[in-house]
Amino acid sequence: MTEPRYDVIAIGNAVVDVIASCQEELIDELELNRGGMTLIDEARADELYAAMPPAREVSGGSAANTLAGLSTLGLQCAFIGQVADDQLGKVFRHDMRATGIDFDPPARESEPATGRVLIFVTPDGERTMNTFLGAGQYLPADALDEDIIRSGAILYLEGYLWDPEEPRKAMRRAIEVAREAGRKIAFTASESFVIDRHGDDFRQMIEDGVIDILFVNEHELATLTGESDFEDGVAAVAGKVPVLVATRSEKGAIAIANGERAEVSAEPIDKVVDTTGAGDQFAAGFLSGHARGESLATCLKRGAIAAAEVISHYGPRPEADMQALMQEKLG
Amino acid sequence: MTEPRYDVIAIGNAVVDVIASCQEELIDELELNRGGMTLIDEARADELYAAMPPAREVSGGSAANTLAGLSTLGLQCAFIGQVADDQLGKVFRHDMRATGIDFDPPARESEPATGRVLIFVTPDGERTMNTFLGAGQYLPADALDEDIIRSGAILYLEGYLWDPEEPRKAMRRAIEVAREAGRKIAFTASESFVIDRHGDDFRQMIEDGVIDILFVNEHELATLTGESDFEDGVAAVAGKVPVLVATRSEKGAIAIANGERAEVSAEPIDKVVDTTGAGDQFAAGFLSGHARGESLATCLKRGAIAAAEVISHYGPRPEADMQALMQEKLG
Repeated sequence: MTEPRYDVIAIGNAVVDVIASCQEELIDELELNRGGMTLIDEARADELYAAMPPAREVSGGSAANTLAGLSTLGLQCAFIGQVADDQLGKVFRHDMRATGIDFDPPARESEPATGRVLIFVTPDGERTMNTFLGAGQYLPADALDEDIIRSGAILYLEGYLWDPEEPRKAMRRAIEVAREAGRKIAFTASESFVIDRHGDDFRQMIEDGVIDILFVNEHELATLTGESDFEDGVAAVAGKVPVLVATRSEKGAIAIANGERAEVSAEPIDKVVDTTGAGDQFAAGFLSGHARGESLATCLKRGAIAAAEVISHYGPRPEADMQALMQEKLG
Repeated sequence: MTEPRYDVIAIGNAVVDVIASCQEELIDELELNRGGMTLIDEARADELYAAMPPAREVSGGSAANTLAGLSTLGLQCAFIGQVADDQLGKVFRHDMRATGIDFDPPARESEPATGRVLIFVTPDGERTMNTFLGAGQYLPADALDEDIIRSGAILYLEGYLWDPEEPRKAMRRAIEVAREAGRKIAFTASESFVIDRHGDDFRQMIEDGVIDILFVNEHELATLTGESDFEDGVAAVAGKVPVLVATRSEKGAIAIANGERAEVSAEPIDKVVDTTGAGDQFAAGFLSGHARGESLATCLKRGAIAAAEVISHYGPRPEADMQALMQEKLG
């Protein structure tokens, strides 16, 4: 087993977020799934966009956001995902590379366009996401650069990408390649509705010992385990994954690794502006500590700091100097 | 003379701003014109974009930004400008319409793409703009809807659009149409370098009494008049335009209308994040008061409030509820 060239390789949705603040009434009027992520087709995307207030465009995608956080925290990262050959695809690629992430898969020449997520942010900071996956839903298994996957210490995967068929196959293949090379698999369950659709797959992967580091929030944990009580849910999974990280929004987070348990409170912030990317950046903060061999408690604290930074502004990726922020908060 | 249907019609650049924060060193390294606006071609745009940190995309354009501010402040507005038939063109059109502005000119089918402005924001909040005009530079005079121009109480024009030949002709025609209909002409000089190139045109328009409301900052006033002393510059122009508004960044602004003079201090803010749009929103605040028949001092105060709001966040258009903010600050 050779020394890995990258700290983390991620496979995920390659999308641009279109973020607008809006009043509560608009969520009802457009019949959106408040606080959730709904997959939409291009016609619905056009319809929702027409009804959307003025917006800002920033690169997004759950695993891509986590990677942006990790890169900002000094880790070596590469991304695998698929954009179309269009302006938004160029924006996504630019933002990944400008963050220091290697991102080489070619743009897809044909329709559909690069994916986008229409995000409505209500005055409480909660984000409601409507995702048109676009070109990313056709990421084929044969587009994976298996050498890249073998060269990362951790392969990070997002549950969101389990929905479209081709990327699901691509991720299964990537898992095989990574495990054969002796690499770790980190997995974020992404969302309760994704678990509704693909929970059997996820539970099987957990039973099979395929997942080394599992990120869930409390709702996802309940859906995954069928346990409505948080501690019962934790007990149901903790023994089956080497590292379990369960986040609880303003109630903080816990982690269990090889029998050791640690907890962290949420970082206090002045105002929640936009919760987009909170889970993604928690994962980035945690993994950045994990890669440095920090204690479980410190990994959690780094996650909480990164999540607090991202929800204090619009957009799913860090804007602060994260290494300086960690230094300041952790000493 | 019929009652105008719109408060303000603007003709301007139809561009999307690509905004990144960066360190001072990058400005030198890329040999940018710090604090200014430089016209660039598509090759240079690609080169600068490749060197740019991760960015956010928001609709921009000087007159378009002013119109967005005016619409947010409750005025009826229509915009004339030209985008291409591409994703950034759709973004620009969406953001105008979602702000309540009528914007109907068709997208241009052929190359080049929709214009964009690469904006590097240094830690002091100063913005350095690099503009690829794109489709907007081919706005033809025959694309003007003369009925629309006649139907606006004020025709608002930006000096930036004097650079490309076709829009310059289009604006000259628009001025004729507006004046024949008895409408007012408001003009922003935009930038000292624009005045270097087109100052003779601007001075002639002032001498000819074509401009009813002139917006300049102190640097532009100096370039326009050749007077390095601010008060000498004011004296050189004040008698030739019915309303002169001269802004001085953190030193506030003055206005002179029909012999009356008023002054305002800059609104205090916690931190200058990004000065992009400061002048545009000052103009919006001022004109919103002017349209309501407010006193000169109140018009200036409204300008200062609008400018302070926009420099406290990234992006050139208001994000706050501006009518509520005006109410709160003015009582």
